[in-house]
Amino acid sequence: MSSSFRFTIEAGDGEARAGRLETPHGVIETPCFMPVGTRATVKALSPRELEEAGAQVILANAYHLYFRPGAETVAEMGGLHRFMSWELPLLTDSGGFQVFSLGDTARVDDEGVEFRSLYDGSRHYFTPEESIRVQELLGADIVMCFDECAPAGAGRERLERAVARTADWARRCRQAHAREDQLLMGIVQGGTERDLRRESARRTVELDFGGYAIGGLGLGEERAAMVETMAYTAALLPADRPRYFMGLGDPAGIVDAVAAGIDMFDCVLPTRDGRNGAALTTSGRLNLRNARFARDDRPLEPGCGCYACRRFSRAYIRHLVTQKEILGLQLLSLHNVSFLLDLARKAREAVLEGRFEAFRGSLSFRAGEPGDTDQRKEQT
Amino acid sequence: MSSSFRFTIEAGDGEARAGRLETPHGVIETPCFMPVGTRATVKALSPRELEEAGAQVILANAYHLYFRPGAETVAEMGGLHRFMSWELPLLTDSGGFQVFSLGDTARVDDEGVEFRSLYDGSRHYFTPEESIRVQELLGADIVMCFDECAPAGAGRERLERAVARTADWARRCRQAHAREDQLLMGIVQGGTERDLRRESARRTVELDFGGYAIGGLGLGEERAAMVETMAYTAALLPADRPRYFMGLGDPAGIVDAVAAGIDMFDCVLPTRDGRNGAALTTSGRLNLRNARFARDDRPLEPGCGCYACRRFSRAYIRHLVTQKEILGLQLLSLHNVSFLLDLARKAREAVLEGRFEAFRGSLSFRAGEPGDTDQRKEQT
Repeated sequence: MSSSFRFTIEAGDGEARAGRLETPHGVIETPCFMPVGTRATVKALSPRELEEAGAQVILANAYHLYFRPGAETVAEMGGLHRFMSWELPLLTDSGGFQVFSLGDTARVDDEGVEFRSLYDGSRHYFTPEESIRVQELLGADIVMCFDECAPAGAGRERLERAVARTADWARRCRQAHAREDQLLMGIVQGGTERDLRRESARRTVELDFGGYAIGGLGLGEERAAMVETMAYTAALLPADRPRYFMGLGDPAGIVDAVAAGIDMFDCVLPTRDGRNGAALTTSGRLNLRNARFARDDRPLEPGCGCYACRRFSRAYIRHLVTQKEILGLQLLSLHNVSFLLDLARKAREAVLEGRFEAFRGSLSFRAGEPGDTDQRKEQT
Repeated sequence: MSSSFRFTIEAGDGEARAGRLETPHGVIETPCFMPVGTRATVKALSPRELEEAGAQVILANAYHLYFRPGAETVAEMGGLHRFMSWELPLLTDSGGFQVFSLGDTARVDDEGVEFRSLYDGSRHYFTPEESIRVQELLGADIVMCFDECAPAGAGRERLERAVARTADWARRCRQAHAREDQLLMGIVQGGTERDLRRESARRTVELDFGGYAIGGLGLGEERAAMVETMAYTAALLPADRPRYFMGLGDPAGIVDAVAAGIDMFDCVLPTRDGRNGAALTTSGRLNLRNARFARDDRPLEPGCGCYACRRFSRAYIRHLVTQKEILGLQLLSLHNVSFLLDLARKAREAVLEGRFEAFRGSLSFRAGEPGDTDQRKEQT
């Protein structure tokens, strides 16, 4: 970890931990939910709204920004922070997941991946070095290794290949990466195979990254297998580095991740649900299109401090949603992001106060709902 | 005018005037641009953003709210102010314009209008009394008489009929209207015919309304004829009552209206342009889709104090617009509304300081662009 970064564990409670990651753009207190801003914007939310909701770090995506508006353009405009007017920490995903999942013509070999652009069908070639070059141009505080993510239901051989290639590419990313003001994270693959996760963790950790991510889960496997693999893999990672579970952030998932010793997680669920007219609440997911809300004067979540809950009723938001008014999806997106940020913050407080299990037991989210799959696909 | 309202002229400069209209929800300083929130929301903007931009009064529409969510529902939720969480003054349009312009099956007689709902095709019957009943349920501070608006290019006979019927309906609205906390405005019709405008003004003014609106312009006639008729008609209205020009609010139009002695005007232009990727600026209308903005680091309007201009570049907003990101149309809508609010405020200051003609001369808007037609049709 370069001197621009420092990760401190403040408290532990079982496997759960509370920490702080210092970055050039400020401190990230963990556990921490990271809203997803794929194309340099968290859909329907302004930076100001995100700041007020307590977002500490936002995700963006190297694949999408490489094509639109182009990494060079972002760099010329002063880098991603300045371009999107977000002064707090940023994380960019490497584009690895998108290269494999968006479009059906990706051709991979040990050197890199040839694929067609989602935007105009043109052919492109991504390598670990190219991903790092793009991420250095973008200039996020935290950047990710370019990995191979095997698809859902991949067989043993395919998983083995992804583990080997991800490790080799991690080495090349480590080598290529030069910016001292960026924390580079390695990614552990291996599906739900314990020995492959062990092998992948060993090979990634020996490269000594500033932090470690768990990829390749939430792709359609059973939820129990995902949670078990998440916990198993987290325990293989060095305790003194931040751990990031990629693409999981439904309410139940956040709590499971914290329990497994994960520090950071991201998910498009809150904004996607918001655009679809749904609200995340402690009593489950509310579909605001439902006629039962037509004269419901309560806020989305009684007691919630977000702008949507402070000022508007379910009845009004239902009216906006059914009339396809943009303010409706803005308010729902804001509430949903606030809800997950609050949940992570409460989990952190519980860990700091040594009552995480009691906190976990007090929640009534049902496992498996809503949105327990990898949400990165929405980035298409 | 009931005792809940008071209109004071603070200064005059030529025909232009600066005034203040006291209402139960606060003071409206005139000249004043009113953002349009047809369905109880100004498209893509939150009440907080509108407050910060300096909006003093917002328009909503009785026709649309009658159908969705229903005037009784709004009343049950505490009225329109509470329903949409807007604590400042509100104005509702009567639905007259919509009944005639939305759909082709309206059947009008002296009693009222039978028409099909835009929402589900069901048959409905609106009368002056029904419009007042709906507007009383909604509870805006300023409400409008139910009028007959003759279409663009209507012949003399049709205009005469609209003038006669509008006057008769104004009398019935006056009779039906009971809420002391609402200011009822009469509407003057008559196309571009001077004698009909005079007749319509005479018959409306003799009913002694709290304010007077000029309707039936901006429907496709020549701009010069519109401006001339606006000025002619404004001069027929009592100086001690607010004057409202319905459905005109492009930058050049605002200045023309103030010069003619108009106090209030509304337009969907700023939010519609915003959703279409255009910005209103002192140097004209910018189409943010244009590639020339791809690396333009300047704000939409240098010197503008709105949130969009304080924090974001044209390059970023262009990126959002071309990628169909919701934040793009939010920022453009916010800027455009702020721009027109600022313009009206500056016109007011110029009147107060006796330099309105110099102010008018300093502006470079070209007459006739953008959007010099009645914009109420967007309310469909």
